[in-house]
Amino acid sequence: MDEYFKEEIKKMEYQAEEIRQLLIETVSKNGGHLASNLGIVEVTLALHKIFDFSKDKLLFDVGHQSYVHKILTGRKDRFDTLRGRNGIGPFMDPIESESDPFISGHAGTGLAAAAGIALANPDDRVVVVVGDASVANGHSLEALNNIGGRYKNIIVVLNDNEMSIGENVGSLSKFFGKLMISEKYMNLRDEVRSIINKVRKANMVLNTLERMEISIKNFFFPLSVLESLGYKYFGTLDGHNIEEMIETFKKAKRLEGPIFIHVKTQKGKGYHFAEEDKEKFHGISPFNLETGDIFANTKTYSNVFAEKIVELGKTDKDIIAISAGMVKGTGLEKFFEEFPERGIDVGISEGYAITFAGGLAKYGKKPYVCIYSTFIQRGFSQIIHDISLQKLPVRFIIDRAGIVGEDGKTHNGLYDLNIFLTIPNYVVISPTTSNELYEAIDLSAAYDSGPIVIRIPREVSFQIDDDEEFVLGKWKIIKYIGDIDKKYENIFIATGSMLKEILDIENLLSSKKINGTIISAASIKPLDEKFLLENIWKYKNIFVLEESYQHNSFGSYILNFLNDKKINKIINKIGIEVGLIPHGKRSELLIECGLKGEKLLERIEEQLNASQTNNK
Amino acid sequence: MDEYFKEEIKKMEYQAEEIRQLLIETVSKNGGHLASNLGIVEVTLALHKIFDFSKDKLLFDVGHQSYVHKILTGRKDRFDTLRGRNGIGPFMDPIESESDPFISGHAGTGLAAAAGIALANPDDRVVVVVGDASVANGHSLEALNNIGGRYKNIIVVLNDNEMSIGENVGSLSKFFGKLMISEKYMNLRDEVRSIINKVRKANMVLNTLERMEISIKNFFFPLSVLESLGYKYFGTLDGHNIEEMIETFKKAKRLEGPIFIHVKTQKGKGYHFAEEDKEKFHGISPFNLETGDIFANTKTYSNVFAEKIVELGKTDKDIIAISAGMVKGTGLEKFFEEFPERGIDVGISEGYAITFAGGLAKYGKKPYVCIYSTFIQRGFSQIIHDISLQKLPVRFIIDRAGIVGEDGKTHNGLYDLNIFLTIPNYVVISPTTSNELYEAIDLSAAYDSGPIVIRIPREVSFQIDDDEEFVLGKWKIIKYIGDIDKKYENIFIATGSMLKEILDIENLLSSKKINGTIISAASIKPLDEKFLLENIWKYKNIFVLEESYQHNSFGSYILNFLNDKKINKIINKIGIEVGLIPHGKRSELLIECGLKGEKLLERIEEQLNASQTNNK
Repeated sequence: MDEYFKEEIKKMEYQAEEIRQLLIETVSKNGGHLASNLGIVEVTLALHKIFDFSKDKLLFDVGHQSYVHKILTGRKDRFDTLRGRNGIGPFMDPIESESDPFISGHAGTGLAAAAGIALANPDDRVVVVVGDASVANGHSLEALNNIGGRYKNIIVVLNDNEMSIGENVGSLSKFFGKLMISEKYMNLRDEVRSIINKVRKANMVLNTLERMEISIKNFFFPLSVLESLGYKYFGTLDGHNIEEMIETFKKAKRLEGPIFIHVKTQKGKGYHFAEEDKEKFHGISPFNLETGDIFANTKTYSNVFAEKIVELGKTDKDIIAISAGMVKGTGLEKFFEEFPERGIDVGISEGYAITFAGGLAKYGKKPYVCIYSTFIQRGFSQIIHDISLQKLPVRFIIDRAGIVGEDGKTHNGLYDLNIFLTIPNYVVISPTTSNELYEAIDLSAAYDSGPIVIRIPREVSFQIDDDEEFVLGKWKIIKYIGDIDKKYENIFIATGSMLKEILDIENLLSSKKINGTIISAASIKPLDEKFLLENIWKYKNIFVLEESYQHNSFGSYILNFLNDKKINKIINKIGIEVGLIPHGKRSELLIECGLKGEKLLERIEEQLNASQTNNK
Repeated sequence: MDEYFKEEIKKMEYQAEEIRQLLIETVSKNGGHLASNLGIVEVTLALHKIFDFSKDKLLFDVGHQSYVHKILTGRKDRFDTLRGRNGIGPFMDPIESESDPFISGHAGTGLAAAAGIALANPDDRVVVVVGDASVANGHSLEALNNIGGRYKNIIVVLNDNEMSIGENVGSLSKFFGKLMISEKYMNLRDEVRSIINKVRKANMVLNTLERMEISIKNFFFPLSVLESLGYKYFGTLDGHNIEEMIETFKKAKRLEGPIFIHVKTQKGKGYHFAEEDKEKFHGISPFNLETGDIFANTKTYSNVFAEKIVELGKTDKDIIAISAGMVKGTGLEKFFEEFPERGIDVGISEGYAITFAGGLAKYGKKPYVCIYSTFIQRGFSQIIHDISLQKLPVRFIIDRAGIVGEDGKTHNGLYDLNIFLTIPNYVVISPTTSNELYEAIDLSAAYDSGPIVIRIPREVSFQIDDDEEFVLGKWKIIKYIGDIDKKYENIFIATGSMLKEILDIENLLSSKKINGTIISAASIKPLDEKFLLENIWKYKNIFVLEESYQHNSFGSYILNFLNDKKINKIINKIGIEVGLIPHGKRSELLIECGLKGEKLLERIEEQLNASQTNNK
């Protein structure tokens, strides 16, 4: 190794430390994905050293590993804006930078996108860095299968930090663990080959070996799955040893692919709190740099669920909780601790989770599939084919339904209501208070006649003075606003988080002389048909409030119900109007979407004006 | 082997031949999946011999391999009703028989369902027969990963006929091909082990080997992926040798699993036409037993697409056609022949197909993702995350949209309109005639501002005397029914296949004094907003006709459009009212669903009556 090269490596090592400091400081203030980015500093630096990403393409799967790449591609100065409104985004995004070839929020998409990009750009190298949890996702595995032996300009870098978000599950991770020793194995292979040759020369077992001649190559098969799947394999590299990586990347660049490079990294590297609790520092809220403590949080709806499911699990041994790589995020940690045999983490395999739950439900178990709204999209087909068609009593806890905040456009929970309202046989509940959430979970455990969905926003839990029991298919009149004699002027049918939002602007509404009735509608499917058929004609203006993409969602569901009964009514929808919501604080975004405070009031006024204009 | 056992085997071989005759005769009359069932006769017989499926569970993935199982479990006498209305169904279905533990229409669901069933029934064996194409699907691979090393009562039988529906794609199939030689390898391993021992004894290379002691076990790693993934592996068996299979299944039954048994079968075995053209006889219409010829067919919409895409491919080198294991079914055969480098079959990997197409579109190619409506469900998340969010110009050709007929409840194309109407940024066209389909495909090739969807029913193509050009966002007035002065009494907005159906009952409508205007609405998204805003108030009754699950579909889309403009109108929806449509002839089912002939008339009359009652 020449002096110049040594010098270069030193510089890069120094740069790595600088970047680490920037990562830790920024994430401590803004929150974000810390542990995985700390782990991948040197890998990213080495890739940028060897490849020319103004021409070649670099993808990260999941994209939350791309902070270092962002810092290296013109976004260092603005890095302090990470995850804020109009700031640097949480994942890769071509709109943010030309250095990001494809959007990357959900795990498992990178390899498939890379294949398309590689075919469209045969003269460029396409490098995909894939996490060891992402690679076990079905979408990744389909892509690995399709890329193998085919796309010569693809280089896959497996970032193996021996745990996904929580802990790796499934046998594939063990398999990759075993690959660790395969370098030894490769050397050993050569050694044994030479021994066998020696043996041959020594004429000791010549006859036997002669007989085996054709089979010798099979003897060394398979070196690894990856070679047999059509990849040139390099591994295992130390992902914090820049020199070693540079040499391998150079080699890989010269070869025809597809190439698979297995890199071991340490999640959280360089910040001892993150090294110790990788899951906590995977995706984290702002925290105290000195102590690693997260700033105190109030009780969320997810916490309410977490408590309740443990309570139920104690008496009901048929309850099985299923997570797709998000045990902590969905509040299942405690349940998994208390009932390890009934807590099943299937990794980032949402489709599997659902069909698996179907198999359990078919034979009398009570599976709870606990999953973020954005990820339930991945089980759409299973929700139809395996659950709806057989009307199996699978319980779905859909967390982070609605606006998620800093995780941004790929992670908002916009479509769950559309999915479960469209596909037959689902009961859908969107509790408006924490008590209703408790009651809904109780109900779900006892409900056995089909699948049932409970929707949970990413929100601090909320309670009103309400002792009316939650009943499926029954809404509650919560209060009248303004002049009680004018209570039929407007009706505000609010579901989920929107009950709090409409109650919060009660005074604003009154001050604008907007009178009416506020309804809490936790039971979305079934609707409160009795109430609608008997009373809706009394109201002049109907507002339906929901934190959901409003097309083909709750408002539309009511509209269609009335229409199909030949009842002619305008429904004023107050939901999310667009499919693309950027990153930023959840409360900021609720305002921007017209679901909170003054903006909510304005939106109601606009709809009233539009209705009046049209009624003239 | 004792005499009794020999006798038993002979009986089973005789039974196999009987079953084959029944399969060939039945499918020649009724159509169905022939080649795969002919291939799996002995495997199914041997499994039924060794396991007790009144207690143990047997799943087939895909379920169209389950004919023999059906014959063996009380459905032989009714087997002549295969795929007919109220007859034996095309796939496994617990409603049809208790011997079918789980529904199984889509490929890739069996292993996941088996895992749930195995956990719920720890004392029973759960045997899953998986095809070599199904196993490469992401849903299967997620399941293989999750089952490995975990569920001791699962036995996976890989039915490897070396081709999926068409031809296996992806490197995984090569991998399974290689496994073929692994038995040799296993023997070889033992042989080499003994040689090494001999060598040791001979003290030839003692020192080296001593050094390697710990690594010896690594030397034999990995025997196969499956062993390293936590399966006990048996293979490769001859899937037509009953004796061999029985002995292995017996062994497997005694062992703790999970176990993976690799069986080689010959698709089409026993019917020489099917052996020769496996793809033709995969899923086939009724055919002539003596010649293997399919009874003549008229030109379908799929044929129209097939022609047109080849024509476009000749001049536009950026067009890339993508199929997910259905090259023939989607009409791409000719395109793949003419442009092999631009026809890409990704196997049963729908999610991959879409993101891959996204990568291509991002860099200037014109990908056509050609897929059945029922399978587009599997790409729901990619349709949002990879395509909609980036507004990439991917072309979707959605074939078999609507009622598919004999393939039954798991295969109807009910939700594609809901998907593409809900998720932002899609243009959706549902041509009403073959000329419009030609024009729509032309338009799609030139359309570069976002994703575009063309919907194709499983129907003979239809043409009217119509020289009006197809324009996006513009509907056509086709004709007036009955008294022209009463043309505003009713408007029939028909999309896709429903234009033909409403025109077909013109005389029936006239005879009932139902007057009105027939509109051809191929442009679903965008709607013809100009027409709706300027003219819809003129019509007394509005009917929207679509061959789609009608909730949150075209009718609802119009209803919501008008509602959001504060226009108060009842939309009478004439679509598919239920999510579960059984198997049977397509035309029969259209009638049953109220979309054809007298039943369509009755439905229109009912809606008119309901509106009048309510208007009083």
